[in-house]
Amino acid sequence: MTEQDVLRLDAEDPLAPLRARFAVPEGVTYLDGNSLGPPLHTARAAMDAVIAEQWGADLIASWNTHDWIGLPQRVGARIAPLVGGAADEVIVSDSVSVNLFKLIAAVCLARPHRRTILTEPGNFPTDLYIAQGVAGMLADRKVRTEPAEAIIDAIDHDTALVLLTHVHYKSGRRHDMAAIAAAAHAKGTLVLWDLSHSAGAVAIDLAGCQADLAVGCGYKFFNGGPGAPGFLYVARRLQGELQSPLAGWMGHAAPFDFDDGYRPAEGMQRFLCGTPPILAMAALDHALSVFDGIDMGLVEHKALALGDMFLELVEVQCGAFGFDLASPRERHGRGAHISFAHPQAYAICQALIARRVVGDFRAPDLLRMGFAPLTTRFIDVWRTVGILHDVMATGAWADPIFAIRQKVT
Amino acid sequence: MTEQDVLRLDAEDPLAPLRARFAVPEGVTYLDGNSLGPPLHTARAAMDAVIAEQWGADLIASWNTHDWIGLPQRVGARIAPLVGGAADEVIVSDSVSVNLFKLIAAVCLARPHRRTILTEPGNFPTDLYIAQGVAGMLADRKVRTEPAEAIIDAIDHDTALVLLTHVHYKSGRRHDMAAIAAAAHAKGTLVLWDLSHSAGAVAIDLAGCQADLAVGCGYKFFNGGPGAPGFLYVARRLQGELQSPLAGWMGHAAPFDFDDGYRPAEGMQRFLCGTPPILAMAALDHALSVFDGIDMGLVEHKALALGDMFLELVEVQCGAFGFDLASPRERHGRGAHISFAHPQAYAICQALIARRVVGDFRAPDLLRMGFAPLTTRFIDVWRTVGILHDVMATGAWADPIFAIRQKVT
Repeated sequence: MTEQDVLRLDAEDPLAPLRARFAVPEGVTYLDGNSLGPPLHTARAAMDAVIAEQWGADLIASWNTHDWIGLPQRVGARIAPLVGGAADEVIVSDSVSVNLFKLIAAVCLARPHRRTILTEPGNFPTDLYIAQGVAGMLADRKVRTEPAEAIIDAIDHDTALVLLTHVHYKSGRRHDMAAIAAAAHAKGTLVLWDLSHSAGAVAIDLAGCQADLAVGCGYKFFNGGPGAPGFLYVARRLQGELQSPLAGWMGHAAPFDFDDGYRPAEGMQRFLCGTPPILAMAALDHALSVFDGIDMGLVEHKALALGDMFLELVEVQCGAFGFDLASPRERHGRGAHISFAHPQAYAICQALIARRVVGDFRAPDLLRMGFAPLTTRFIDVWRTVGILHDVMATGAWADPIFAIRQKVT
Repeated sequence: MTEQDVLRLDAEDPLAPLRARFAVPEGVTYLDGNSLGPPLHTARAAMDAVIAEQWGADLIASWNTHDWIGLPQRVGARIAPLVGGAADEVIVSDSVSVNLFKLIAAVCLARPHRRTILTEPGNFPTDLYIAQGVAGMLADRKVRTEPAEAIIDAIDHDTALVLLTHVHYKSGRRHDMAAIAAAAHAKGTLVLWDLSHSAGAVAIDLAGCQADLAVGCGYKFFNGGPGAPGFLYVARRLQGELQSPLAGWMGHAAPFDFDDGYRPAEGMQRFLCGTPPILAMAALDHALSVFDGIDMGLVEHKALALGDMFLELVEVQCGAFGFDLASPRERHGRGAHISFAHPQAYAICQALIARRVVGDFRAPDLLRMGFAPLTTRFIDVWRTVGILHDVMATGAWADPIFAIRQKVT
């Protein structure tokens, strides 16, 4: 493979034109869109319009005039086709962590005789912590962890909920949603999928996989801005049964009646809590416009092709430098990022950043590279591996400056 | 009193220059800053800078480079002096509703042998609903409501928490924080204040009143934008004892160690949950700059003076039209808004809006006018009452168009 071959792949990529809509700094190779997607060039103008033409011009009346009150549903409906849900099964609200609490607690309250929340060790920390927080509030409940390969066998009639991240944040390993749903349903157990590391990057068919519940992130592959609101999915058949204990007024059947007693709204509105963050939601709404009419099959195909290229090039060009693949080799077992373990992963990651190649270090020893398919080119992968080879071959990573840890790594 | 007298009050008002910093549409008399504060003229530029110079320029590195990770504490430290707390006692996070859940649940978990959350009927709905949601998750807990005047006598050794809104959202009635704290503490009970309708409008001395816990709103008198994040206050003496079951990763002692077990951070950081919404927090941070170095005594003085003027003018000019004062007459018993009951309050409110006087209707029969002291002039009050008189004297409110209810009222 030559650089010319790689440039040809970009020239033939049907998604390539989308990249021009994003503001990725010149000269930066950004392989961390899986942590924080870049802004659209139009993000500022969109936010200006909300501030000046909505908030500033119409003030409180904007809740009606600009249908701010309907924004959680509208943005949810925009996400729904990207994850295989119906428009009335997805709503945008709060953070992923808060949404996890709503759904884990709702299931535990609806299934009081099942005492176990089943998940895997090394799941994304907030998923584990929130499950622990729910269990700590309810008498006689526990969080049980079993390795991924043992999850299906561990599901029993005491399991209220299986809680898994679809694509693992470190390894990129992808769970088989349909198989786990089938096994869980056979025992009367529900499954809650955290789509944070997959939504917007791979094709997800929640309905086709008999999914029950899901949450996902607005600031990674959906490019909604740092700390953008998250989303929730609840299959229509479960919406009447489940009720969030985060019973804020925006989830009430008639919030502006100001009743003293909580009465949950019909449908997804009951999973809202407080007043929705309009500026943040509007930023996410605008970012999602890039996905309008997109074929998620194409998106996934590109993500996996970028990953394959990275994997092969690292093994060929940098195989001598002690990198161990920490992701599934088989492309359909992965999401849109790949990790290699290396004892000096932190310093190597910093040395790459100094050369304007932005990936991620994940403790204790992973170099993680993300291939957000809307913003990553094949040539980015090619150049990254070339620079990685240079960093390793010259020993540049060993400069003591690269050993200094920052607050967020 | 003449219009000249009123204009003189504005000319002599030390806070008057601040109003020019806000984008209130020309010709609109906005008496609803207690529902949604207007933007600063500089809000767009501030947001543009965060999008272009932080998110767009430095992408994921912004968490360190621009100290996004410290933003919840930094904005909290800006609010702290405005409510009489120390910088390390206030943090910005999530919505008011979510923050209520964190603190109500934390108290109930820390005081398992006390079964009652005591509040008043007609408290702001989300406060009641969230308390009901917490009680519904915990075995053998209940929400007890007693009228405001009976709260102190109702506190007993079974009361885990007294939950009250400092200034009532409808009547504007203000609770005596110090008296309630003293009565509660005598029984070993904690008090959680919802400052949503008072913070930024009146002088609050949390420390001086022996306050335990508080939450408050970013989008009303703090002008942080629609659905802006809320804040939490936890007195330093309680921070080690209380732990939120919304145990998201940002409240962990070492979030980037990615441990499987939750271990709460020291101090206020443990009351964070998910990834903070940076765009929304940055907007609030910028809006709070108006309060830098402000004397909250002056702010309160102006709020109460505006209210006094409104109350007196309505009673003198519109007394014949059937308005009943639904707020405390005595100025120190109130916050920064005043409600009058009238059987036709909804249509009257709509008729005023048609004349570009924006107040609020609160079901079933209240016309509520807010006097956000940074953005309201004495002449606004004078003109509002003149227009109200006109609407009533001409019967303009009876136009059928004003009877049509909108989604958000």
